Amino acid sequence: MIRTIATATLRDYIALAPHERAARHAAGDLVALGDVELDSPVRPARNVFCVGRNYLEHAKEGARAAGRELRLPTVPTFFTKAPTAIAPPDSTLRLSGAVSHEYDFEAELAVVIGAQCKDVTEDEAPAVVFGYTALNDVTARDLQREHGQWFKGKSLDSTCPIGPWIVTPQELRDPQSLELRLRRNGVEKQHSNTSKMIFSVPRLIAELAKGMTLLPGDVIATGTPEGVGFARTPPEFLADGDVLEVEIERIGTLRNVVRIA
Amino acid sequence: MIRTIATATLRDYIALAPHERAARHAAGDLVALGDVELDSPVRPARNVFCVGRNYLEHAKEGARAAGRELRLPTVPTFFTKAPTAIAPPDSTLRLSGAVSHEYDFEAELAVVIGAQCKDVTEDEAPAVVFGYTALNDVTARDLQREHGQWFKGKSLDSTCPIGPWIVTPQELRDPQSLELRLRRNGVEKQHSNTSKMIFSVPRLIAELAKGMTLLPGDVIATGTPEGVGFARTPPEFLADGDVLEVEIERIGTLRNVVRIA
Repeated sequence: MIRTIATATLRDYIALAPHERAARHAAGDLVALGDVELDSPVRPARNVFCVGRNYLEHAKEGARAAGRELRLPTVPTFFTKAPTAIAPPDSTLRLSGAVSHEYDFEAELAVVIGAQCKDVTEDEAPAVVFGYTALNDVTARDLQREHGQWFKGKSLDSTCPIGPWIVTPQELRDPQSLELRLRRNGVEKQHSNTSKMIFSVPRLIAELAKGMTLLPGDVIATGTPEGVGFARTPPEFLADGDVLEVEIERIGTLRNVVRIA
Repeated sequence: MIRTIATATLRDYIALAPHERAARHAAGDLVALGDVELDSPVRPARNVFCVGRNYLEHAKEGARAAGRELRLPTVPTFFTKAPTAIAPPDSTLRLSGAVSHEYDFEAELAVVIGAQCKDVTEDEAPAVVFGYTALNDVTARDLQREHGQWFKGKSLDSTCPIGPWIVTPQELRDPQSLELRLRRNGVEKQHSNTSKMIFSVPRLIAELAKGMTLLPGDVIATGTPEGVGFARTPPEFLADGDVLEVEIERIGTLRNVVRIA
């Protein structure tokens, strides 16, 4: 059962003080999951923050596919996705076949920030996490390549499904020991574990918050492991009708159908 | 005299239909500019969109400073700045000397979007412009370089002053024939004309809106001309106490004081 909370958005809820949250919970009603259609669990007040090349094997496959030498990042490679790209769980991702010919998937663990903060240390970082969810960083590879900077190829409408819900740190336990999988039409394409991140969740938060204020409801996608379509031989890109599932241990499955027209 | 408008934010005002705007204008009061302290004229609902290397001479100086071969972009190089970086005109930009040692200036013409739109042509683009303002894309060059993708080096708090106000397209006339200058402590460092953009304002809007919805209040910074600090011999970076002025013909002067502590 889902307990409904009397705030306009989850972002408003996240911004409440703990005692205010408790009061809202006490006043909340329960509804059955089957009686509701879930929206994406949060819509940040700005772009979704993302990290490139945060799993060694993915960095390797990317360098190989591009014919580049592998150079491991010494600090996280941050970029953003426009919030207009955010899509709900179980929704249809309506993509334009005219804008890109190379849509690809990227299964990722996403962190939702729970408190305004700046210049936090790695030790302080877990205290500013509201929770965790799954995210599919759908990418237009041709645009990502052509535009040099990744923003445009990462920000087309419907290319950022998030969900199905947010799991609190208490429920999730260790964010660095979660099995992570992506299936395309039931076939496993990505399978790794968040223990293999190059930069851990606390490190990512600390790096991002250096000189830059983080806000309640901010979302940080923590990077994807190996197995993405463009790095396969031959390359594989999304097709009309594809069903994508991002499954993360202790969170659940984010499922979306792809429509390319 | 400034006419005050009864909406909570300029973003709300921009989202009004033309007849609603006219009604608010008729009901507005006038206040003297000297009686008010200006905030940044708009705060978008998401990151500020920016364009790299949109003036030939700046692309050349950047390649020279980095020891790279000059390769001109065939499509705009889009990246973003976090909205927490936005600062008002005449404000003090409080920068951290621990986070970056290489703060630099970038004078830019900024476009404010006036209507929700997607997949607009270059011909249709002028109709979705609400107005124009000045923007200083203050950049931490060391972070821009180290993180590979530019977002982090472009998004530190207080590194995106905007203003002093928004000039409507009717008042501005041609956005591609404006003198553009940056002065540091009264000394001219950048001087060009918006006629020298590689991608014009309508082209930038059309490219950005391909497959991606634009929203009222979105800001697009259109790139900086030559003369930035890091490309000078020897390189020049911002110092505590610096006064920066971005002056754009038919708009005015965006002035800020730099504090590095």
